[in-house]
Amino acid sequence: MTGSRVVALGGGHGLSASLQALRHMTESITAIVTVADDGGSSGRLRQEFDILPPGDLRMALAALCEDTKWGHQWSAVLQHRFRGNGDLGGHALGNLLITALWDLLPDQHVRGLDLVGRLLNTRGRVLPMSLVPLDIEATIVVPDDMGEPAEITVRGQSRVAKHPGKVERVRLHPDSPPACPEALEAIKLADVVVLGPGSWFTSVMPHLLVPELRQALLDTPATRVLTLNVSLNDDEASGYTVAEHVSALVDHAPGLGFDHVIADPQVVRTQAEREALEAAADLVGAELVVSAVASAREPGLHDTLRLAAAYRDIISGSVG
Amino acid sequence: MTGSRVVALGGGHGLSASLQALRHMTESITAIVTVADDGGSSGRLRQEFDILPPGDLRMALAALCEDTKWGHQWSAVLQHRFRGNGDLGGHALGNLLITALWDLLPDQHVRGLDLVGRLLNTRGRVLPMSLVPLDIEATIVVPDDMGEPAEITVRGQSRVAKHPGKVERVRLHPDSPPACPEALEAIKLADVVVLGPGSWFTSVMPHLLVPELRQALLDTPATRVLTLNVSLNDDEASGYTVAEHVSALVDHAPGLGFDHVIADPQVVRTQAEREALEAAADLVGAELVVSAVASAREPGLHDTLRLAAAYRDIISGSVG
Repeated sequence: MTGSRVVALGGGHGLSASLQALRHMTESITAIVTVADDGGSSGRLRQEFDILPPGDLRMALAALCEDTKWGHQWSAVLQHRFRGNGDLGGHALGNLLITALWDLLPDQHVRGLDLVGRLLNTRGRVLPMSLVPLDIEATIVVPDDMGEPAEITVRGQSRVAKHPGKVERVRLHPDSPPACPEALEAIKLADVVVLGPGSWFTSVMPHLLVPELRQALLDTPATRVLTLNVSLNDDEASGYTVAEHVSALVDHAPGLGFDHVIADPQVVRTQAEREALEAAADLVGAELVVSAVASAREPGLHDTLRLAAAYRDIISGSVG
Repeated sequence: MTGSRVVALGGGHGLSASLQALRHMTESITAIVTVADDGGSSGRLRQEFDILPPGDLRMALAALCEDTKWGHQWSAVLQHRFRGNGDLGGHALGNLLITALWDLLPDQHVRGLDLVGRLLNTRGRVLPMSLVPLDIEATIVVPDDMGEPAEITVRGQSRVAKHPGKVERVRLHPDSPPACPEALEAIKLADVVVLGPGSWFTSVMPHLLVPELRQALLDTPATRVLTLNVSLNDDEASGYTVAEHVSALVDHAPGLGFDHVIADPQVVRTQAEREALEAAADLVGAELVVSAVASAREPGLHDTLRLAAAYRDIISGSVG
């Protein structure tokens, strides 16, 4: 275990995997989480209470629960969704806990999350990327009636994530949201910053669309690590290779460099794939680290211990 | 602090006050809680999920939270009700936490509550009086069109508690519900059993209408304490004196005796009141203990430290 100050940016299951890996290595973890979800439990809470969508924040908190039986039980309870289609059906208990704290401490998002963290005795800190609820809008290329590619605009994270076609570009509404000040401070003081894995356009790239956050990532003296996805099976990734994910990221944040890009062998199976990914890593000035980080049991997901090993090798080499 | 095994029976704010008092004296507390609430958040959850109403259980758990800043914060969060009139509006977070555990552990009410207790690091144990949701039905005397007293039947705890008129008698539906086995065991092994204070007909007396629970209270070798209310201001108490509360209890559970009856001086202000209460105490074979236990700041409620002092004097005398 190092004393490195690590910041992980992302959302959803991808960020959760990254946090579960990083907690094997350091006690100083800050999660910076997308707040653009508009579907399911988060979408309903956002509508009922006009708050930040809590879902991705909850998943990050659950990932940082104590590594004890007590912590595992809390993690399961936070993630539990009520059954049925009634008023509570589909709500995750952790979303309701976060909402309750924000209800008790109005307009104090960070204090509310810090208090949830203390109540659950989580390791590290979970912060929203912005203090205003955001919407994602995407330009998606779909075949038109004649089978020719045509651009359409789709708004809302839940719709973008599931819409057929190839995502060309994403934007945020409002388009230059303020960053969470504590998130900027964490990036400034970090030894290591990790972006990804996760739904590329709706969980990973939104951070780069918050101007102050993008600038903080450009300015930080930290070692920058980009963790690529182990599979491209979700709707949102359709039409993309992981190499193209890197280029899409550069398109949205010109000039942003990384020190290391982590890829699983299964995304560089052919010589062509490997060359394309090496070229993409060059584009962001990074060393390509090909390391077995995929889960053998759960296709498409990272194995948190293997990912921990990959992070450890990079971090011990960088800041050891 | 004694090692006495104490069981407290009741519901709502009255039980909460008793538990907060008792925790000053012992670590071994079992709360046995009414499960007949059908109003508000509990009523809605009962309807949505067909579960025991969690509200009174939540209040007992909140009363038994750790006596630390962390515990006080958890207690406040459990008791917090969401604002507004939406799907969540009015729900107490603690009710949702209990519901989530029952959702995770179907048909395991006691295990679910024990797990909530562990997650919150509460002192003691909180048990439902029965494992089936109950309804309270009352015979209430109201003036008819001619101003003559007439009996009507009112069903549902929330309606009974607020209905004008004098409650004559209460019944449960189903009428002979099974008791929670762990509650029976706790009463059997107790050193001290405390009944009351609280809404007399809807929180205190329901326990005596569960046949196995009534029998366990008759059979236990424990010191039996009856704690009377400090005021009779709620709708449900209208037409009653505390002495008549004792007689009503005897009517519903013939033969049940007590060792001590605790009354605040403000309910025995006159000689007549004192004589009536002494006669009522005689009726249940108890010593009348008049002790200043009312809160000076919150009229109608018990002061938990003063009540703790009264319990201590009784318990040290009984089991010292």
